[in-house]
Amino acid sequence: MSENKEIEIMQSVYDKNDQVAAEINLSLTKKGIFAVNVMGSPGAGKTSSLIQIIKGLNNITPYVIEGDIEADFDTKTLLSLGVKAIQINTEGACHLDSPMIGKAVDDLDIEKGILFIENIGNLVCPAEFQIGEHMKMLISTVTEGSDKPYKYPLAFEKADIIIINKCDLLPYVDFDENFFMKGVRALNKTAPVIKVSCKTGQGFDEVRTVLKNKGQF
Amino acid sequence: MSENKEIEIMQSVYDKNDQVAAEINLSLTKKGIFAVNVMGSPGAGKTSSLIQIIKGLNNITPYVIEGDIEADFDTKTLLSLGVKAIQINTEGACHLDSPMIGKAVDDLDIEKGILFIENIGNLVCPAEFQIGEHMKMLISTVTEGSDKPYKYPLAFEKADIIIINKCDLLPYVDFDENFFMKGVRALNKTAPVIKVSCKTGQGFDEVRTVLKNKGQF
Repeated sequence: MSENKEIEIMQSVYDKNDQVAAEINLSLTKKGIFAVNVMGSPGAGKTSSLIQIIKGLNNITPYVIEGDIEADFDTKTLLSLGVKAIQINTEGACHLDSPMIGKAVDDLDIEKGILFIENIGNLVCPAEFQIGEHMKMLISTVTEGSDKPYKYPLAFEKADIIIINKCDLLPYVDFDENFFMKGVRALNKTAPVIKVSCKTGQGFDEVRTVLKNKGQF
Repeated sequence: MSENKEIEIMQSVYDKNDQVAAEINLSLTKKGIFAVNVMGSPGAGKTSSLIQIIKGLNNITPYVIEGDIEADFDTKTLLSLGVKAIQINTEGACHLDSPMIGKAVDDLDIEKGILFIENIGNLVCPAEFQIGEHMKMLISTVTEGSDKPYKYPLAFEKADIIIINKCDLLPYVDFDENFFMKGVRALNKTAPVIKVSCKTGQGFDEVRTVLKNKGQF
C-alpha cells in the first residue's frame, strides 16, 4: 500500500471519530453533564486522583468511565466507594475513541453532574483523539521526570489543566520544576498547573476549584 | 470505510513491518551485533538503565538508537559519556517501526557489539512491533504500581527480561511485589525479573549477566 493511501485512511479514522465526538459532546451538554478526559502515563495516579477529587465534590454527582486495555481493578475500587462507574476494556487498543464512549454513556445512564473519562495509561495516543469531552486533564508525576513536556508535547499542548502528582516523593527524586514549567509554557500558555499528592491530599482543593469553574457548577 | 477494510489495512502494516524486521535481524546477526529492544512507560528510566548497564560492559562495544517523539536530551547524555548513539524523532508516532531502525542502523555505522534500541515511552504500542531485535527488555517501576502486568499484558508477555526500576523508592510507595510477580508469571513463565535502582546501581550486575548470556558474549 502506498504511504498516501495510509495517510488518507488515517484521516478518515480521525474524521469519523471527531464527528461522533461532537455528537456526544452536544448530547452531554444538553443533559447538564460536564465531561473531563483524564490522561496520563501508566501508573501516574489517574484513578487515585479521581478518588481525591470526588471526595470533595459535595453536591455535584460524579460519574466515571474507566478505560483499560484489560482488568477492572479501578472500576471495582470506585464502585466500592459508591461512585457510579463503568469499565471499558479496549483489549489491546492504546486509546479510547468516541464510539466506545458513546456506548458507555448510554450504558451508564447518567444525569446532571461531572463525568470523568479515564483514558488508557499512555502519554501519546489518547491526546490525538477527541472523545466528547469538555476539557482534558493531564496527570504528570514527579517520578517520571521533568523532561516529559519536551518529549511528549501533544498531551501537554492540549491539556486544559495539568496536575503534577506524587509530590510527596519530591524529597527523594530529581525533579526540576523550573525546567518542567519552561517546557509546559512553551506549549501551553494558559492551563493551570497544580502540584498534588494522592497520599496526603495536597492540592486537590485547587483542582476542584478549577473543575467547578470550568464546568460552571 | 468498513471495519473489515481497516483490519485488512492494519494487517498489511504489521506484515510489512515484520518483513523488514526479519531482514534487519539477519543483517545484524551476520555483523555480530546483538540487538535489544528497550521498552517501558514514559519516565521509567530507560536511558538511566542503559547508562548503568553500559558502565560495566567492559570489552563489549555498546551502541544506542534513541527513540523519542521529540527532543534529543538522552542522545546528548549518551554521546557526552562517549557512547555511540543516534537519535530517531518520530514526530508524533507512538512506537518505533522497523523501517526507522533500518535507516538508523545504516547511519550509525556499527560493528560487532550490543545495540540497545530505546523505544518510545509507551507501555502499549511498542510491544506490537518487531524492530529487528534479538530480545526485548521491559523496564517497569515500583512507582507505577504493582497492577501494571494486569493492565498492560502484551508488553509483559513479550519481554525476555523484566527490570523493576526505582527500587530505592520502595520505602515510600505501595508496591506489592507478590501481586506484581503473580501478574507477570500468569503471562510469562520464563523471563528473569530483576530489581534495580539507577540511583544506587543495585541489580545491574545481574542484568548484564543475563544480557551477556543471551547475546553469547
